[in-house]
Amino acid sequence: MTTVAILGAGGYTAVELIKILLRHPHAKITALTSLDETRPVGAVHQSLVGRLDLACEELTMQEIASRAEAVFCCLPHTVSAQFVPKLLQHGAKVIDLGADYRLNSVETFETWYEAKHPDPERLGKTPYGLPELFRDQIPSANLIANPGCYPTSAILPLAPLLRSGLIEPTDIIIDSKSGVSGAGRAPKLLTLYPECNESILAYSIGTHRHTPEMEQILSTSSGKPVKVIFTPHLVPMDRGILTVSYAKPAKEASQSELLAVLREFYRDEPFVQVVDHLPATKDVAGTNFVHLTVRITGGRVITVSAVDNLIKGASGAAVQNFNLMFGYPETMGLI
Amino acid sequence: MTTVAILGAGGYTAVELIKILLRHPHAKITALTSLDETRPVGAVHQSLVGRLDLACEELTMQEIASRAEAVFCCLPHTVSAQFVPKLLQHGAKVIDLGADYRLNSVETFETWYEAKHPDPERLGKTPYGLPELFRDQIPSANLIANPGCYPTSAILPLAPLLRSGLIEPTDIIIDSKSGVSGAGRAPKLLTLYPECNESILAYSIGTHRHTPEMEQILSTSSGKPVKVIFTPHLVPMDRGILTVSYAKPAKEASQSELLAVLREFYRDEPFVQVVDHLPATKDVAGTNFVHLTVRITGGRVITVSAVDNLIKGASGAAVQNFNLMFGYPETMGLI
Amino acid sequence: MTTVAILGAGGYTAVELIKILLRHPHAKITALTSLDETRPVGAVHQSLVGRLDLACEELTMQEIASRAEAVFCCLPHTVSAQFVPKLLQHGAKVIDLGADYRLNSVETFETWYEAKHPDPERLGKTPYGLPELFRDQIPSANLIANPGCYPTSAILPLAPLLRSGLIEPTDIIIDSKSGVSGAGRAPKLLTLYPECNESILAYSIGTHRHTPEMEQILSTSSGKPVKVIFTPHLVPMDRGILTVSYAKPAKEASQSELLAVLREFYRDEPFVQVVDHLPATKDVAGTNFVHLTVRITGGRVITVSAVDNLIKGASGAAVQNFNLMFGYPETMGLI
Amino acid sequence: MTTVAILGAGGYTAVELIKILLRHPHAKITALTSLDETRPVGAVHQSLVGRLDLACEELTMQEIASRAEAVFCCLPHTVSAQFVPKLLQHGAKVIDLGADYRLNSVETFETWYEAKHPDPERLGKTPYGLPELFRDQIPSANLIANPGCYPTSAILPLAPLLRSGLIEPTDIIIDSKSGVSGAGRAPKLLTLYPECNESILAYSIGTHRHTPEMEQILSTSSGKPVKVIFTPHLVPMDRGILTVSYAKPAKEASQSELLAVLREFYRDEPFVQVVDHLPATKDVAGTNFVHLTVRITGGRVITVSAVDNLIKGASGAAVQNFNLMFGYPETMGLI
Repeated sequence: MTTVAILGAGGYTAVELIKILLRHPHAKITALTSLDETRPVGAVHQSLVGRLDLACEELTMQEIASRAEAVFCCLPHTVSAQFVPKLLQHGAKVIDLGADYRLNSVETFETWYEAKHPDPERLGKTPYGLPELFRDQIPSANLIANPGCYPTSAILPLAPLLRSGLIEPTDIIIDSKSGVSGAGRAPKLLTLYPECNESILAYSIGTHRHTPEMEQILSTSSGKPVKVIFTPHLVPMDRGILTVSYAKPAKEASQSELLAVLREFYRDEPFVQVVDHLPATKDVAGTNFVHLTVRITGGRVITVSAVDNLIKGASGAAVQNFNLMFGYPETMGLI
Repeated sequence: MTTVAILGAGGYTAVELIKILLRHPHAKITALTSLDETRPVGAVHQSLVGRLDLACEELTMQEIASRAEAVFCCLPHTVSAQFVPKLLQHGAKVIDLGADYRLNSVETFETWYEAKHPDPERLGKTPYGLPELFRDQIPSANLIANPGCYPTSAILPLAPLLRSGLIEPTDIIIDSKSGVSGAGRAPKLLTLYPECNESILAYSIGTHRHTPEMEQILSTSSGKPVKVIFTPHLVPMDRGILTVSYAKPAKEASQSELLAVLREFYRDEPFVQVVDHLPATKDVAGTNFVHLTVRITGGRVITVSAVDNLIKGASGAAVQNFNLMFGYPETMGLI
Repeated sequence: MTTVAILGAGGYTAVELIKILLRHPHAKITALTSLDETRPVGAVHQSLVGRLDLACEELTMQEIASRAEAVFCCLPHTVSAQFVPKLLQHGAKVIDLGADYRLNSVETFETWYEAKHPDPERLGKTPYGLPELFRDQIPSANLIANPGCYPTSAILPLAPLLRSGLIEPTDIIIDSKSGVSGAGRAPKLLTLYPECNESILAYSIGTHRHTPEMEQILSTSSGKPVKVIFTPHLVPMDRGILTVSYAKPAKEASQSELLAVLREFYRDEPFVQVVDHLPATKDVAGTNFVHLTVRITGGRVITVSAVDNLIKGASGAAVQNFNLMFGYPETMGLI
Repeated sequence: MTTVAILGAGGYTAVELIKILLRHPHAKITALTSLDETRPVGAVHQSLVGRLDLACEELTMQEIASRAEAVFCCLPHTVSAQFVPKLLQHGAKVIDLGADYRLNSVETFETWYEAKHPDPERLGKTPYGLPELFRDQIPSANLIANPGCYPTSAILPLAPLLRSGLIEPTDIIIDSKSGVSGAGRAPKLLTLYPECNESILAYSIGTHRHTPEMEQILSTSSGKPVKVIFTPHLVPMDRGILTVSYAKPAKEASQSELLAVLREFYRDEPFVQVVDHLPATKDVAGTNFVHLTVRITGGRVITVSAVDNLIKGASGAAVQNFNLMFGYPETMGLI
């Protein structure tokens, strides 16, 4: 049994994480904190009534580390990086679901997040917790940077094609559509029901913070600097991201050859399903699965992938990492 | 041509009102105010971009009355009643879409709204702007209390049956289901998209402020004091109220006799459709129409009605009243 | 390990059942049938791609019973009752998710379902699989009638109050609101997306087939014949039922006394949460939990309950029954 | 007053058309037909109860032309083209909302629609009813090909940029997202509520029939052959299309210069709003307006546009054409 704490328990990623961990036979949640809540967690998230008898507490990092071997940080950027060094120092292993440790470069972080990084020396040394690409780095790590939701959906179909040199590393267009839970639980006009119901819009064209994260990880796969144009959209649904990416072929290859490359790459992966049909987000909603496929048309390679933004795009991937870090079967709690 | 001002232009009733008035051949919007906006109305409501070249202004009641013959108040309760006396004094005719002038009794108002009424002497003297019941009082009035959305949906099917003595005035259960726009445009957790999408809940059982309004108007129809139990619900959709009411029969009457009473009562009404089928809110969404019907089962008379909460339940009814007050055909701008 | 077959694998209850059973550590799905499908189950339900390597097969009842110790029937009414006798004869234990074995009276069945019952002698002898009321009858049974979704939501809050004589057995009004998955997976105009999205309607007032089921089970709790008026609604959401019931108090009791009765009754139940707040269907969506509460207002006792129609209202309850029949912990696979 | 008939009155474009025409002061609907309906139109579309006293009739083209000066065809492809020649011969003017007369080339039609064209000689001679580009051809025409919904959304932002030589005519990627009403009213699994609610998917990548229509019209604007990659999506909402297009710049130009080009091009257009913000489909839902804008990022020109697929994408544009053909102000009935 591994004891677990969750920092930032008031949001949507936290409640999904709690639900997964309640099903996990070897995890025991022992502490919850929140920046603005002290109520029992069943009051903060009514879906947890009677399922977890804990309140959000104000705790020092030392207290947290004394109660929990594993700490999941569901905190705003720059907040995690203030707490993580102390948690590590007190012996906890940490999975950070935020953006603080995903980028290798302090400059890139500070440019895109417009803030000073509180713990710059760990950048570039923290594994990126996408087991499908970096599994071997995870078991021995004390800190994992859990991937962003959009990057997960975009990287998984593109990385094998870049690695095989089948698509060009530049002029990649990534057009993603996300459910509203991705925008967080803080009330604001943009995500008020009557504003975003029955509507779709694109936002942050060219300026979304997941752009450099995609470029960094895809560059690792490619071996060359990857440049992407990234257009996120808000779709009237709770959950799910559909990502359609348009890339230039770099070698002659048929659609079935591309599918075969993807199938081979993900052959032993428990959560990645390479499918023939065009995936729908509903088919992966509430699960840690990814459905992905590829098409060739009009001289472009087009990849299509579907994930649940809160599970494979956040809390499910975090538990996948937790399982790898603590020696449990990777799928435990996630089927 | 009648000049028109709208106070409280930032909310959902206001934007619907503006759209109706833009279609109205004899209304001209000349002033807008808001408690917290000074931007052009096309920035406050992007659906109005290029359609109305006005900003929300800070104006005195005298300035408003000098610019507009008709003033629509889309303001919180107790705020309208601070402004209305001055508007009337300066010669404007006023349609108040809020609750301030609907109840006849100051005591009832102050009990249910938990606030002191700023203009108590007009209570009981202001016509209730439901033309289907009180049409003759409207043309000569300078101030109209526009009905609440739930009361409109509940009163229209029940009033004729009470008036005909076909149902008992007590033990009426009113179970209403409303789209989320009814909860207003101020961001709050309850109406955040991921909270209320894919969910239905009942709220304010026994305590909703529309209860005394229903009882007062239905008592007028009945001639006896009417008591209701009122349960509102929040439904994951933008628009519409479906109200199912359960009443005890007071006389022997078949379902087709009850339908005939309703049909006769509303025979000449342009906006009330007595239908045989069970109505759906979608069939009246975006319109000023009401669909209603009646069933008898298990010893109860059950009425079912559907309205658009923002149109017939607010802004459409307001324009109906405007048309009656200014001598235009009642349906103008509303078909 | 218990081997399991599912008959009628093409619908929404079946796909939920499969997902629960895939998480269940002691169940192994070994056979699937469908009245109109022979494709792999991952083609019939794309959410199951790569998760279950079975196709829908045409199998005799003997073949099914030779492959599976437990058989779940997700079949239309009167179809189950043609297959069940043979399944039992060949030694399978059966959980019927349809309506064929819920009613005790052949006459009542044939009146409400307008069809001849193919297996009338088992009516009245088959336990009603609502463990919260009839747990002791389940472990020894070879056939269980799994409750209807609306009845589950209505019975759970009302039964303890009837049993305690706190509410009258007659004049109970049950106003229920269901997500669209309850209407099944066969394409029809009523449940086409653009027809039922952004709309709510009541249907089958006084004629819904769950009415006699509610009355029969509630009569058992009451000891007196219970009569209900039942109004179901279709709500624009996938999952969930909210039921608001209006009953006459039979004894003097405060709201907190009624809550205490419910809390005491369900004290040891793993899936029933008696809550103070008014429940939302979202809080139980995707789970086997029930949230319920009670209010007193206007001389009526009002109960409010929320369930997921496909889980606690169908497949989750079925697995609860499976666990009891095969000696597994009741919550296995369901947390 | 102009008399009007609608062929194919049972679908979603027809009901929107009827609602617009009921508001139109100079149109009178005198005949309705349907391939499979003979009921009163208020039974076919319950939202029309009491608003239009006509049934769907079986009529010859001669009878239709004798009753109606203008005929709107809302019929499947190849069906319109069987009826249109006779309607024209009997003196009616026709607006075809289907695809039969949009393409100039019989070969292209027969390749993409996989059917023989019943009236090939009119291809290439029928004006494409997008008044913003081809207004001068419309008043004198007896037959208009009303544009497809996706093409309308894609062409309007791209055409002025192609015409000005600001973007390259090849390698244009058009990524469109449509509400479900675009898929029609015939019940099918794909558009059943529980299938497409809470889900987004891409479909018909590289094979959608609107592709050659976009290429043909954009080639007219460009003066060079335009090639596009077109990816449509199904989004869980009733109405609206959002189209994001990615094009290569052909000349040095800043984002504000591109916006200025669009503003100048659409300066006098009553229905096209060039906006600074990223448009949302909700802002144009239920209207004939188009909101569009442009961004430059990562070396690409990105246009974003929002239309209501049933109004500006179908029935609203049809009435715009009707107004031009019969000499009414272009916006009549459409504000």
